[in-house]
Amino acid sequence: MKSIGVFDSGVGGLTVVKELIRQLPTENIVYFGDTARVPYGIKSRETVIRFSIENILFLLKQDVKLICVACNTVSSFALPVIKNHFRVPIVGVLSPGVREAVYATRSGRIGLIGTKGTIKSKAYEKEIKQLSPKAKVTAAACPLFVPFVEEGWLSGDVVASVAKTYLKPLKDAKVDTLILGCTHYPLLKPLIRKVMGPDVILIDSAKQVAMEVKDILSREDLLNKSGRGKHKFFVSDNPEWFSGLAQRFLGKPLKDVRRVNNA
Amino acid sequence: MKSIGVFDSGVGGLTVVKELIRQLPTENIVYFGDTARVPYGIKSRETVIRFSIENILFLLKQDVKLICVACNTVSSFALPVIKNHFRVPIVGVLSPGVREAVYATRSGRIGLIGTKGTIKSKAYEKEIKQLSPKAKVTAAACPLFVPFVEEGWLSGDVVASVAKTYLKPLKDAKVDTLILGCTHYPLLKPLIRKVMGPDVILIDSAKQVAMEVKDILSREDLLNKSGRGKHKFFVSDNPEWFSGLAQRFLGKPLKDVRRVNNA
Repeated sequence: MKSIGVFDSGVGGLTVVKELIRQLPTENIVYFGDTARVPYGIKSRETVIRFSIENILFLLKQDVKLICVACNTVSSFALPVIKNHFRVPIVGVLSPGVREAVYATRSGRIGLIGTKGTIKSKAYEKEIKQLSPKAKVTAAACPLFVPFVEEGWLSGDVVASVAKTYLKPLKDAKVDTLILGCTHYPLLKPLIRKVMGPDVILIDSAKQVAMEVKDILSREDLLNKSGRGKHKFFVSDNPEWFSGLAQRFLGKPLKDVRRVNNA
Repeated sequence: MKSIGVFDSGVGGLTVVKELIRQLPTENIVYFGDTARVPYGIKSRETVIRFSIENILFLLKQDVKLICVACNTVSSFALPVIKNHFRVPIVGVLSPGVREAVYATRSGRIGLIGTKGTIKSKAYEKEIKQLSPKAKVTAAACPLFVPFVEEGWLSGDVVASVAKTYLKPLKDAKVDTLILGCTHYPLLKPLIRKVMGPDVILIDSAKQVAMEVKDILSREDLLNKSGRGKHKFFVSDNPEWFSGLAQRFLGKPLKDVRRVNNA
């Protein structure tokens, strides 16, 4: 039985895996986290493309029927380039989030937060404008959010203060919808909601991504209809660190994380 | 004329380069920053050793007469292993800092801050105990300091609050000497001094490292005695990002940073 392949620079993609398991409990999943070269968000387009191709080649060896890029930096920087190189369907986290945001906004003022790489790529803006040419996008890079999440600082005065600084331009622009454009950010949702106020809709693309994966597998008649899926986790470094963080992202601990020399 | 080779996971090593230029103005310097795989501080020993060997092999191709490991994580994790593999003299940042701290302390209570990797390795403790068996070492990992420095958050309430949290065990232990065990930390010196109080001696090993480099070159009769040294900078990714940060670390801007596909 072929698997769904998922990769990310590190642990963030587990927020997507969580949703895939929920929506597709009968599917096998193979995850690869490039923890030897994490993070990608501060790296150049060329480098992110090179790393992504290496990750995809690893997943293809694991006999996957679809690849889910569970990383916004890769989806923004690399996906348009690499998608055409491979025969396997490749799903990113960008388009599902964009569709949801365009659907949700009433004022047309959409906010976007992400890593430096994601924001710099302007990939979200382009895709939003294609679907909704009148939309006004305000974007802000939040580079300290990833280290905060990975260190477990999810609440408290310090993170709140950083969040207020980062989110100020979005509040000033009066966005009514905010795309959490990084797979780490859903863990900061309570805090972001507090800063942005209860009326701003927060778009966390994991749910939408899993729905798109389901759609494609169904359309191509690749769904696995019975049994209980198996989940395998590979990393390029630090399996213990990854296992430790998994609880926070996946909502359950991971025991069998294997290290591979991919990076 | 052969050069002094210097490498670090990213930009932090430039604090050492600054001191090398000050003390050895006639020497050529070749710097390599592994910005495609930065940071090292959260990665495993095995991976840090592998990356370090690749970095050394790159510097050897640049015709260097000595290699300075301007990274505490590498010096702690990898140096004892890799030092014996190569004929070129290799100098780390650990021993010079330890000697200075042992010399400076009056109470024997020495504090150490660094990345998770550096602290976990216990390399500093071992070396301090060898020189001064009665010394009492209190160590704390400060994983958010590197992202703060790289984002330019060097002062203000947020960083002060994080610093107070991290440094509390060291204050409680009443250390009289604190080793800044990461090449990024000298940029936080004013803040750390404020938190620790004016009586605690802060050890920033860059100065000592440059002195050790000078000693070795002099002993081996490899010093370049006249002229003005040339400085070359290579990175494995993001030369613009590196150049931008160089001002902060080196005290002057860098124009000619070259990207190489080493990582």
